[in-house]
Amino acid sequence: MTSFDVAKLAGVSQPTVSRALRNMPGTSPQTRQKVRWAAEQLTYIPSDSARSLSTMRSRRIAVVSEELTNPYYPELVEPLRRHLAEHDLRTVVITDSEHHEVGPQILADGSYDGVILTTTLRTSALPRDLTERGIPHVLANRVLDHPESPSCSVDNAAGTRQIAELLAELGHRRVAMVQGPVSTSTGRERAKALGDALRKRGIHVRRDQKLRTTFGHDTGRALAGELLDRADPPTAIVGGNDVIALGVLSAARERGVRVPEDLTVIGFDDIPMAGWPLVGLTTVHCDLDELARVSVELLEQAIASPEPPVTELRVPVSLILRGTHGPRRP
Amino acid sequence: MTSFDVAKLAGVSQPTVSRALRNMPGTSPQTRQKVRWAAEQLTYIPSDSARSLSTMRSRRIAVVSEELTNPYYPELVEPLRRHLAEHDLRTVVITDSEHHEVGPQILADGSYDGVILTTTLRTSALPRDLTERGIPHVLANRVLDHPESPSCSVDNAAGTRQIAELLAELGHRRVAMVQGPVSTSTGRERAKALGDALRKRGIHVRRDQKLRTTFGHDTGRALAGELLDRADPPTAIVGGNDVIALGVLSAARERGVRVPEDLTVIGFDDIPMAGWPLVGLTTVHCDLDELARVSVELLEQAIASPEPPVTELRVPVSLILRGTHGPRRP
Repeated sequence: MTSFDVAKLAGVSQPTVSRALRNMPGTSPQTRQKVRWAAEQLTYIPSDSARSLSTMRSRRIAVVSEELTNPYYPELVEPLRRHLAEHDLRTVVITDSEHHEVGPQILADGSYDGVILTTTLRTSALPRDLTERGIPHVLANRVLDHPESPSCSVDNAAGTRQIAELLAELGHRRVAMVQGPVSTSTGRERAKALGDALRKRGIHVRRDQKLRTTFGHDTGRALAGELLDRADPPTAIVGGNDVIALGVLSAARERGVRVPEDLTVIGFDDIPMAGWPLVGLTTVHCDLDELARVSVELLEQAIASPEPPVTELRVPVSLILRGTHGPRRP
Repeated sequence: MTSFDVAKLAGVSQPTVSRALRNMPGTSPQTRQKVRWAAEQLTYIPSDSARSLSTMRSRRIAVVSEELTNPYYPELVEPLRRHLAEHDLRTVVITDSEHHEVGPQILADGSYDGVILTTTLRTSALPRDLTERGIPHVLANRVLDHPESPSCSVDNAAGTRQIAELLAELGHRRVAMVQGPVSTSTGRERAKALGDALRKRGIHVRRDQKLRTTFGHDTGRALAGELLDRADPPTAIVGGNDVIALGVLSAARERGVRVPEDLTVIGFDDIPMAGWPLVGLTTVHCDLDELARVSVELLEQAIASPEPPVTELRVPVSLILRGTHGPRRP
């Protein structure tokens, strides 16, 4: 039974059926009545609702990403879309403003078979809310302080160890960090692990050289500018992610500080932009395709089992040497 | 009536109700039967379907963008989301692979009150399909060869005129174009208008200097590389958009071609990256916030009226002079 059958019986066009059943303007009360009568005769319900009432499966997965304008997230959403498609699942991207978390009612309204959270904060109540509502979900790229749901993220500790090793080898002593927000697992883990790894190699980062900001170019540029304008500027700055590191490069460019001659800059993530010859950022490569593949597998497990184990998986990382690192200025 | 009432009556937990009604694994046939019986007693239907059956309005808008990893699109999706939210409409981003258009059945399944198309090709049948199914929709950023639906895009002709003027003033004669795909209105309009505008100023772009590619960094880099490796390389290259222009800058960097001393590079769009000091691209600024505001207004009109006029609006543009243009090398 399709809307065309309803249209035929009601003696109207198919678009009119669609509009009338949705109570949209442009159809008279008489037409609406006629269409509703015809729909009832044929026990027709619009496909979406019909689907929901019969199988209760939509084969749609909500991917929640609150910061699409951060160039990192589209690079994660795209492989998620691809791997979901391989499982015959369709991706719907739900974004909200950067500072306003998507609420559980939006995700639990029956439209989605599962949810992949990519920007969840460390103490977010959203995963527990979804668990309580029986909505299968996983975290991709982030972890919670009190793990509630299966998650897959990257091995931040291994990445920072490799950065610390490189900086020690290059002889840097005055190292500064412009790291991400402490409210995110990514921001917290990278900053802590980097501090630890540098200390182990005899490099003590002074308190006033440990800065935090949001994962953005402009914020990275502003804080790096402050560092570079000091009487004793650092000889190396490690960004909390590539986008912050790009901001550091911008701050250096504005001041005529040469990279890598005067300043070493290291990122984290290896977004495609980092590899553009125009940029050539030395950074830690994260395999986002693997992260997406594993996350989708965990989601399938969560859909298949009412109480999936709270697995916490990490994908490996590797340092990529490009053009923004060099030996400490003598 | 909520799922908690159903859970109470069925003597199970609320997540079990959710899973049982969705036919998901982990609930026994007995439990499912019990839950279905309770749901029937209470005439409970899951909220999404209930909503669809009662008001037929979801207040959800599908924003179709097939190329999120192109840094331009998140910059358009974000203001669309913001302006939709001001109209109390929620944004759901639908992406498909870059080379596979989202089908009408996905958009017309009753989940969305309207659709905003951002990546539609010039000859796409999708707008007509949506019209025939009575789905209110607009095109944002693209136009069709045979306009079918309201659209808002940017004034590509005005932008290219300003570029041509600048290049003429700077004395460039050997100008090359690496423009976008002819299958897109953006690619076609910019390439055609630029050729015309340059010719009017006495600059004839040779056939073999008019190249086309997809709107990407890597493709722009490859074609610009070919141009720069020729015996008579151009003194100026105009990219079909900023991302192509960034690829041109990468090709120049790889070859030690200095910008702007040896080569002028101009983009189009003014994505935030173009303004990063690290990049400093001379380009045409498009007001994407205004484009989004107007597009959402057109969509509201389309929702309010069954046969909205096929308006074609353009938002103004302006040339932004940064660091990648200079006088022709003597």
